Amino acid sequence: MNKEFFKVTRLETVLELTHTFPCVSEEVLPLDQCVGRILSRDIVSRIDLPEFNRATMDGYAVEARSTFGASESVPALFTIVGTVDMGEVPAVSVKSGEAVRIATGGMLPEGADSVVMLEHAQVLDEHTLEIFKSAAPLQHVIEIGEDFRTGDRILLKGSRIRPQEMGVLAALGETHIPVYRQPVVAIISSGDEIVPIEQNPGLSRLRDVNAYTLTGLVRMSGGVPLYFGIVRDNFDELHSLCKKALAKADMVLISGGSSVGSRDFTIDVIEALTSSRILVHGVSISPGKPTILARSEQKAIWGLPGQVASAMVVFHVMVRPLLERIGGLSEDRLAAAHEVPAALSRNLASVQGRDDYVRVKIARRGDQNYAEPILGKSGLIHTMVKADGLVRIDMNSEGLDKGTPVRVMLF
Amino acid sequence: MNKEFFKVTRLETVLELTHTFPCVSEEVLPLDQCVGRILSRDIVSRIDLPEFNRATMDGYAVEARSTFGASESVPALFTIVGTVDMGEVPAVSVKSGEAVRIATGGMLPEGADSVVMLEHAQVLDEHTLEIFKSAAPLQHVIEIGEDFRTGDRILLKGSRIRPQEMGVLAALGETHIPVYRQPVVAIISSGDEIVPIEQNPGLSRLRDVNAYTLTGLVRMSGGVPLYFGIVRDNFDELHSLCKKALAKADMVLISGGSSVGSRDFTIDVIEALTSSRILVHGVSISPGKPTILARSEQKAIWGLPGQVASAMVVFHVMVRPLLERIGGLSEDRLAAAHEVPAALSRNLASVQGRDDYVRVKIARRGDQNYAEPILGKSGLIHTMVKADGLVRIDMNSEGLDKGTPVRVMLF
Repeated sequence: MNKEFFKVTRLETVLELTHTFPCVSEEVLPLDQCVGRILSRDIVSRIDLPEFNRATMDGYAVEARSTFGASESVPALFTIVGTVDMGEVPAVSVKSGEAVRIATGGMLPEGADSVVMLEHAQVLDEHTLEIFKSAAPLQHVIEIGEDFRTGDRILLKGSRIRPQEMGVLAALGETHIPVYRQPVVAIISSGDEIVPIEQNPGLSRLRDVNAYTLTGLVRMSGGVPLYFGIVRDNFDELHSLCKKALAKADMVLISGGSSVGSRDFTIDVIEALTSSRILVHGVSISPGKPTILARSEQKAIWGLPGQVASAMVVFHVMVRPLLERIGGLSEDRLAAAHEVPAALSRNLASVQGRDDYVRVKIARRGDQNYAEPILGKSGLIHTMVKADGLVRIDMNSEGLDKGTPVRVMLF
Repeated sequence: MNKEFFKVTRLETVLELTHTFPCVSEEVLPLDQCVGRILSRDIVSRIDLPEFNRATMDGYAVEARSTFGASESVPALFTIVGTVDMGEVPAVSVKSGEAVRIATGGMLPEGADSVVMLEHAQVLDEHTLEIFKSAAPLQHVIEIGEDFRTGDRILLKGSRIRPQEMGVLAALGETHIPVYRQPVVAIISSGDEIVPIEQNPGLSRLRDVNAYTLTGLVRMSGGVPLYFGIVRDNFDELHSLCKKALAKADMVLISGGSSVGSRDFTIDVIEALTSSRILVHGVSISPGKPTILARSEQKAIWGLPGQVASAMVVFHVMVRPLLERIGGLSEDRLAAAHEVPAALSRNLASVQGRDDYVRVKIARRGDQNYAEPILGKSGLIHTMVKADGLVRIDMNSEGLDKGTPVRVMLF
């Protein structure tokens, strides 16, 4: 059982390896289904936006120059020559000293270059208006092309489509959008002690908890989970299931079976797969040391620790970045996401030579966030349920003092 | 057009009104579909977890007392009396001076109360082991019921099911979970100037941008968007569409048509609906002042500004809290979510008497986040695309100084 200790890889090296896996292919989706998806091409505007000079306030369209010098004590008099109907090209034009009623979103008539708000004007009779304030040119107006111009690169490949990006795409008339497919992630649970959750595990066995945490994590990270069930500690069964999983999925997660010793056969199974290579066997982080990363036919296979909390930490720290990367998300988005600054609420000791990930709860006091470490054995599920996220203690640190600014990786 | 200014309501009052709408009904879902959903009942454990004393390390199960005093210089000698097979109740028991091989997750044999790690032991021959270090009782062991005990209230009604909560539910053997339905949100776009996005708007008209930003926002907030199309500025058409929307949805959003003046008929339409009441007509925030909130048959109807950026701000500040609340999310979760602390990168002026929402980009320098206001007219869509979130300037403030700590509401 004690036959060898694996040579651990540094976390940074594992994260660099994630760059060596290719992105999934593209698909084209109707715009209304695109929120949360990743653009697979740059979006270049084919129009000027807006396509006409548009009012941004309810009021009166005028030539700005004719309002110059107007004030509460010396209002300027204007003749009302008509109304802009919403959605219509104005039938009237505006000359010096003339005003046209206009509502937010309306098209400015010819001759007008400014909109006077209702509050700064008073109607004297049907045809006459007093204006109390000088209007600057282009006041309460959005000019043609001020938002976007034809040929502008509006959205970049690799960016996530949020509601506002859906709005831009709608404004540009893009009804069908090129996005990356959602990566399909196979989930395999291994171990003689694991039973399906609907079974009573009795004494000595455990329900398949990892299948469900991993299903949730994959879904929250933009992937599509595909559960392949539980496999016994048996070379042939695992080998056959891995082959099936590789045929259907873009990435494979095997939980359990990645520790030293009796479960070494997970490594043997991966090595027996087509054009496979073990890239990592053991990572200098805690929890999560016995992690495996391998490649078979350009696809990543992860061996995750069987312990629930360890598997979740490994997912957040290593699997998610790889999943987001093969899902097409660009680098700058990866770095910024999922992190919130906070101050540590107490001293934290740590062992040098490995990156420690500590579960914390975020407490808000005034304008400051505090990261409060969750106490209790790491193998307990309730430590994950109580936590809001993880704080990293670098491998070169012996610990962090109370009050140290940290970044909490949310989950 | 200038016939009356509406009496504005304070934001706090609007948020209090959101408490007066009932939650949607429950449904029961298979556990693997529950991530992101809201629990509609408390979850009480029906078992002890774990159900047996479990090893959390690979090593040797021993009686802790027999290791006391062991050291590198004076190791303690043990007899190896067997192996715990994973998933099996151990056939052997442990007496003083005896050790049993055990792997992570294995069940401790009778008599053993501690696990010695591989690193602290050396096998001399098939039956003999040296241990170099004293083991504390319960070292590397999780005791029966240490995670959860029968009858414990594990998860609370109103909490969101994250991957770790899925894990807990799996561990408890809960295969089907009571959750709140996802609220259905009807989206209606109004205005003579609005055309479907696949149409060329020509001069003077606009594509229906709000339908898409709102679709995205509803989906990101846990709702199910249901688009009812574009309706002209026409009482009968809007009235008929609102009735259909109320029959199918839990909440109705009407964008456009909520400003003073020619579009007052939105108010008239709402007032003509069954047992309806206008609760709010105008809110003291900017952008977003011309917002309407009404109730018809216990359901919320919102009139949102037609301008894209304003409608998005109103959604984040008022509609989302109401949507999350009727979706069953509990109060404490609502408050904490979606906000990141940062320091303001420059001075910001503001008008007293209303809450200003300023679009900002978050820049990270060292361990500090900076909120950088996005410049440019508020009507431009690209100000939303460049932004990471909103900063609120309170109605009693004349502005915020550079360096002020703020909280960024992410979007």
